[in-house]
Amino acid sequence: MTTTITALQADSAESSFTTRTLERRSLAADDVRIAIRYAGICHSDIHQVRDEWGGTTFPITPGHEIIGEVVEVGSSVSKFTLGDTVGVGCFVDSCMECEACKDGEEQFCSQGVVGTYNGQDKFGENTHGGYSQQIVVRDHFVLNIPEGMDPATATPLLCAGITTYAPLKRYGAGPGVNVGVIGMGGLGHVAVKIAAAMGAEVTVLSRTDSKKEDGLAFGAKAYRATEDGSAFKDLAGSFDLIINTVGASVSLDSFLGLLGRGGTMVNVGAPSEEQSFQMFSLLAMRRNYAGSMVGGLPETQEMLDFCAKHDITSTIELINADQVDEYYEKVVSGDVRYRAVIDIASLESAAV
Amino acid sequence: MTTTITALQADSAESSFTTRTLERRSLAADDVRIAIRYAGICHSDIHQVRDEWGGTTFPITPGHEIIGEVVEVGSSVSKFTLGDTVGVGCFVDSCMECEACKDGEEQFCSQGVVGTYNGQDKFGENTHGGYSQQIVVRDHFVLNIPEGMDPATATPLLCAGITTYAPLKRYGAGPGVNVGVIGMGGLGHVAVKIAAAMGAEVTVLSRTDSKKEDGLAFGAKAYRATEDGSAFKDLAGSFDLIINTVGASVSLDSFLGLLGRGGTMVNVGAPSEEQSFQMFSLLAMRRNYAGSMVGGLPETQEMLDFCAKHDITSTIELINADQVDEYYEKVVSGDVRYRAVIDIASLESAAV
Repeated sequence: MTTTITALQADSAESSFTTRTLERRSLAADDVRIAIRYAGICHSDIHQVRDEWGGTTFPITPGHEIIGEVVEVGSSVSKFTLGDTVGVGCFVDSCMECEACKDGEEQFCSQGVVGTYNGQDKFGENTHGGYSQQIVVRDHFVLNIPEGMDPATATPLLCAGITTYAPLKRYGAGPGVNVGVIGMGGLGHVAVKIAAAMGAEVTVLSRTDSKKEDGLAFGAKAYRATEDGSAFKDLAGSFDLIINTVGASVSLDSFLGLLGRGGTMVNVGAPSEEQSFQMFSLLAMRRNYAGSMVGGLPETQEMLDFCAKHDITSTIELINADQVDEYYEKVVSGDVRYRAVIDIASLESAAV
Repeated sequence: MTTTITALQADSAESSFTTRTLERRSLAADDVRIAIRYAGICHSDIHQVRDEWGGTTFPITPGHEIIGEVVEVGSSVSKFTLGDTVGVGCFVDSCMECEACKDGEEQFCSQGVVGTYNGQDKFGENTHGGYSQQIVVRDHFVLNIPEGMDPATATPLLCAGITTYAPLKRYGAGPGVNVGVIGMGGLGHVAVKIAAAMGAEVTVLSRTDSKKEDGLAFGAKAYRATEDGSAFKDLAGSFDLIINTVGASVSLDSFLGLLGRGGTMVNVGAPSEEQSFQMFSLLAMRRNYAGSMVGGLPETQEMLDFCAKHDITSTIELINADQVDEYYEKVVSGDVRYRAVIDIASLESAAV
């Protein structure tokens, strides 16, 4: 049976959010119905609501950092039972048969992964995300939230956590490895916590000193403001790995110059402008520049288990549904410390 | 005792070559004096003679692909004896004490490596390269040319060979690995031979079909002309590794789009213009873009031994000293098949 729920929706790139009713499908055998408790606000929600990447289908209900409770399971679901605390990240379905899917990297499904929102599912319906009271998701794409983990602060891990965990692990963050994190917003602050827990020597590279105290509290050994330029001289060639979490363009040559021999800079943000650099920035010291995009289901579960073990969650501002428009402005201006999470219980009484 | 020898020199970025006499130093205890038999012409010789990278010291005697015969050894040299056939590559000295040097990556010496030419040695003298009758080099920086290897055709391996071998090995070229080689000039044709010998499936990506027959003969399984654009559609996402040997700028987004999941494109050429790309070209399929710059002494010797074992040398045009100016034009226009090597015996009678 379909259920009628309340959701936040935007009707165009220029409009603010409105509460609307939305139908969630009746369960297929492998579906899980989740009563959403929390939904994080990711900068990419804003890019898509404002159609900054192009191709947004309106009306849109964003939200791909979701934690809630299992309230119904399909006939073949064995992994979850009613009452389980579960999570959903950036995608909700894939072909499950291509090489990427078989390798557990569903985000690179050759048939195209189904985004949690602003996508189209196998039934031909547009997908709607976590700024809503319920979501129905194929069981393979549902994550187990480890016992004892605080659900509100864990919510951003479903995107910000896996997005930073995956490249930190892939490029060997650990003891004796110097890791720089560019930007200390929603992604960056989680990157600092995870890299520190992996045992790496972490340096925050933030525009100003305003988040220094927090950065050190999150586990960084050093914090350098980049706005005066001296950091680029002092730290030249000193990093093995740099995670660039900034969604806007930065001076690539300046930051690549901070990498030592064979070092790698990984972009997890997606500036829409063309990027430029001098080839000698890569040739000198045989440096690498890599992209990384979230992670597959097995690695996302691994990340959640790692974070639970190391007592890592996001540092958040818990907001109500009627504050989302206001917080979109705050995210864009970098004023959120460090991730805004919507208390979905507030949707019931919200009149936006 | 210093020796007076004949060398080719250019006096300015605009001038052609002239034969001159040059003093080679008397031997330090760890020095080897080499009577040069062959010197290859590398595109970077031309960049530096024409001061296209800036900072060239004139007069300049280029040449960093050198094979010759040992004619004198210093008192502490045990690795070489008179009559040995030996090689010299892109650099002739380094601090030998920094981390890079200890790791056998002397090219990244923290004190700055001493280039074979257009550099300054520890005695404060400008270095002069292989377009000359003799060179004196610290023993650590002299390579053993394996017995049976043809010295003329082996000469380009000292730069073109190691420059392509190092990234092919680092990024795992081997059986089952799809390797694309962009450009089939001096570097590219050696990359094809080496990658094929490593067991990789090699595809040449050349502007036109003009070198197709040669490419397949060198060991490529496929050859695609890129000028009509269809290759970018047909081969999208199909390579694990692409070695870009082209010194000029290419469309990075087009070529990055040829990489599959987690694939790496390595630049070994050094275009002087700023390079541009869209970040999504890296984010999609978590691709890597890397630079690589020659290789250290241990790896260069390993490359020579590998090439000897697999019967790989360069395909060359052997020229006389008075043809160098003419061949510079040919190299720039891509008309050399596939590397020009100067027969240094011709220097004696050259009147340029």
